[in-house]
Amino acid sequence: MENNRNYDELPMNWVGDWAGRRAALTPERTALYDSATQKSYTFQAMNERACRVGSYLADVLGLGKGDVVALICRNRIEAIDIYLACGKLGIILAPLSQRLKKPELGDLLSRLNPRALFHENQFAELVSALPMPASVKAVINVDGEQNAFEDIILKTEPREVNIPLALSDRCLYVHTGGTTAVPKICIVSYRQMVWNSFDILTTGLVGTFRKVLITFPFFHIGGWNTFTPVFHAGLTSVLLREFDPGLILQLIHEGRVENFGAVEAMLQFLIAHPTFRETDFSQVKAITTAAAPCSKAVMQAFLDKGVPISQTYGMTEAGPSNFAYIARSESLEELLTNAASIGTPMFHCDAKIIDRETRREVGTGEVGVLCLRSPHNFDGYLNDPERTETVLDANGWVYTGDLAMRDQNGMVFIQGRADNMFISGGENVSPEEIEQTLMKHPAVAGAICAGVPDPQWGQTPVALVVLHADQSVTEAELKDFCRDYLAAYKVPRQIRQVSQLPLTGAGKLDRQAVAGMFAY
Amino acid sequence: MENNRNYDELPMNWVGDWAGRRAALTPERTALYDSATQKSYTFQAMNERACRVGSYLADVLGLGKGDVVALICRNRIEAIDIYLACGKLGIILAPLSQRLKKPELGDLLSRLNPRALFHENQFAELVSALPMPASVKAVINVDGEQNAFEDIILKTEPREVNIPLALSDRCLYVHTGGTTAVPKICIVSYRQMVWNSFDILTTGLVGTFRKVLITFPFFHIGGWNTFTPVFHAGLTSVLLREFDPGLILQLIHEGRVENFGAVEAMLQFLIAHPTFRETDFSQVKAITTAAAPCSKAVMQAFLDKGVPISQTYGMTEAGPSNFAYIARSESLEELLTNAASIGTPMFHCDAKIIDRETRREVGTGEVGVLCLRSPHNFDGYLNDPERTETVLDANGWVYTGDLAMRDQNGMVFIQGRADNMFISGGENVSPEEIEQTLMKHPAVAGAICAGVPDPQWGQTPVALVVLHADQSVTEAELKDFCRDYLAAYKVPRQIRQVSQLPLTGAGKLDRQAVAGMFAY
Repeated sequence: MENNRNYDELPMNWVGDWAGRRAALTPERTALYDSATQKSYTFQAMNERACRVGSYLADVLGLGKGDVVALICRNRIEAIDIYLACGKLGIILAPLSQRLKKPELGDLLSRLNPRALFHENQFAELVSALPMPASVKAVINVDGEQNAFEDIILKTEPREVNIPLALSDRCLYVHTGGTTAVPKICIVSYRQMVWNSFDILTTGLVGTFRKVLITFPFFHIGGWNTFTPVFHAGLTSVLLREFDPGLILQLIHEGRVENFGAVEAMLQFLIAHPTFRETDFSQVKAITTAAAPCSKAVMQAFLDKGVPISQTYGMTEAGPSNFAYIARSESLEELLTNAASIGTPMFHCDAKIIDRETRREVGTGEVGVLCLRSPHNFDGYLNDPERTETVLDANGWVYTGDLAMRDQNGMVFIQGRADNMFISGGENVSPEEIEQTLMKHPAVAGAICAGVPDPQWGQTPVALVVLHADQSVTEAELKDFCRDYLAAYKVPRQIRQVSQLPLTGAGKLDRQAVAGMFAY
Repeated sequence: MENNRNYDELPMNWVGDWAGRRAALTPERTALYDSATQKSYTFQAMNERACRVGSYLADVLGLGKGDVVALICRNRIEAIDIYLACGKLGIILAPLSQRLKKPELGDLLSRLNPRALFHENQFAELVSALPMPASVKAVINVDGEQNAFEDIILKTEPREVNIPLALSDRCLYVHTGGTTAVPKICIVSYRQMVWNSFDILTTGLVGTFRKVLITFPFFHIGGWNTFTPVFHAGLTSVLLREFDPGLILQLIHEGRVENFGAVEAMLQFLIAHPTFRETDFSQVKAITTAAAPCSKAVMQAFLDKGVPISQTYGMTEAGPSNFAYIARSESLEELLTNAASIGTPMFHCDAKIIDRETRREVGTGEVGVLCLRSPHNFDGYLNDPERTETVLDANGWVYTGDLAMRDQNGMVFIQGRADNMFISGGENVSPEEIEQTLMKHPAVAGAICAGVPDPQWGQTPVALVVLHADQSVTEAELKDFCRDYLAAYKVPRQIRQVSQLPLTGAGKLDRQAVAGMFAY
């Protein structure tokens, strides 16, 4: 009987029962402020709602452990109710992005085989046009005129539907856009959600804050990974149906928000909003950015408000609570200096940077592929063991595909995607690194780089730049500028000025188009 | 590749490397204030010390994963250094109580087979008198005149000795008083320590406090389970070599303490101290009590200082982060009203109360035996699978042996020990152990022991003995005899000679009758 239990697979009552546990510990604390309705909900109230929804799912729809429920809905309280109810029953929630096109949604539904689909009224038309798999027994509108959710589901007699679940049981199916045509479906376990929460709590991102704004949508792991740690720790989530800069600034001004995460574009919208200047940020204790380094200009606007802003990094397959920059001092200047760094791995996350070819760890200052390992690893792509194997190895390492470099202080910098990398004269070249260098030039507003075939070096970098309106610079000057920062083989052989950078349909930089624009 | 990993047994770099991780995340924050030397140490400094000690353990002593290091030492920084170093190497630390008698310590050493023994100078004589198992290759004095720790170990060239460990690997061997004469040795995994920490962090006991005083000794799980969550979360531990009410009040008055745990006897000593009345408690945000309900009079003294005080509950085999009373309101009156309750289970801990005979769950208001299940279960008693089976069942439930009752609000009240054990000053006392000791005296033919209420210690042991026909012995001689074998708190306060021991109808020793025979 010594040491012979696998606690990952031991069913326990608390696993998934976020609502029941918090209601037992802190029933009267505020769990949620819904900005759309201006209503607050205690943990006890949230648990009662979750019990009613759970009773409906189990007793009316006949759903149980391992069944899938799909969701097409903005960040509404009903989405949270369903998430908390599914956690009691071991039902797997599959949130789908309303931004996807019908064929993509149809494909996801056919792979998920949900037993029920909940949707917001405004997506009723979209949903009715989707090919519904035979598995779907109920399609339920969560608002709208005949409101089944309010009138039937929330009036279901609540019983204690919670069952014991294991940490290895499945909590969410989250689709990721990825770099390929077909969205991948990540299997997210309770273990992943719980350990994400622990990494956030021990790293200190949550805990000193009591009121956290959820800015990310619930069809991303980021939405649930903001809500879950906050709820888990008994703090207050502030709910916003969708990103709305005016409303966010109002909530901040009212003192309802102490912390939030954002991508740079969101912060740019806040800064550009007419009320930004007058907004009182005194209650905001910290902002974290994600997905990409934040420009210094944007950081400065918040630092001027007295709000520390720093980077985090993560991906669905590995967390997403993977890296955070923790300020070493109280100086806002420090944050600005380290703006480009994602900091260090969170407490329970191992990180290594490996050479693409040899798979050996690279040295300080060298660029390689970032690999991560933690109990908040995902459990693979749904029904796709082959693709899973390309990402998750036998020792538990997740291959992120992101290029990274660790400096002599242990601070890590993301250098672009390994997929974008090309080889010139036997050296790895990251287009993102060259783009970031070009962007440092005061005349350059935007840059894009790609490798083009070269008879001598195999490939060689070229670039397009967009200049600021009133600026001018020659190609030779830009190359000279690059030589100050980059090894010779990284200096673009040609740099052309254009009025607009080529973008993909999804609005991302289109590096393939760049290569086609250069004759060779 | 879906879901086929056991994350409990997956080696990861961060497991056990408390020092390295915190040094990477928050190098310059204060990890420790040592009240004995009035020195503060950053996380970076603690990690450097741990790396030096680890290098010594690995490179000089040749120790590695699975080896045992024993420790007889009060709460000194050197004990923490060794704990943090062992965590890097997978060495199992076995702290031993200096309060135990030589035969008890000798027995523990023979069962632990440590490779090295570290001790404080003041226990040098005790250690030299112990029968040392052949496994012990080094006995090292951590202070004293020829200070090997300071002069050699802390001057070892530090290298990064950390190796990947699994959560299921062994962190500590902790001995507990136990219900029988022989102390039990609990196997404490990294999983247990990490999840204890998570329960404390999510329940909210730590996190709003930055400075936590360690009142419990490191030979108890309570000492390490105060230090570890605080260190894990990047907060400051305040170290005290041993319980010293005057010094604690001074540290409180200086604003160095925001939170601490205590048993009631400790609080009584604080109240009784001449400086208590003038001590400024304004920085103390909360006090938690453990081991037994705190009397209202004692609670009132701290409530009068404006300090919330509430109960926690736990046992080494199941946590010890198992229950906590979380105030529902800001009213101190509420805490007083619920003084006798241990509150509700912590977030990640399942609890049930079962009938002793039928093993079925009892109803609200009924008394049964409390059972607990969580990832912070212990991993059994060392080399004692049979005894382990009596405590830890196949579904992961730990049988606490404590009687408990849940009221209609879900609040749980401890009702005493299911077996005969009682608690004196926070220490488990086994009547059987004392009886067996008395029986070793040549004059004693039979003995019976029980706990009787005591205003200071909660309970205190008393005994009845029957002498052999031709023998005589005084009460004082018997107490002296006991002192040679038993810790002071186990020596009966009164020992009366009787002609016959009280028996139950079934002919078993009637300990309840003993208690009734002593006026108190």
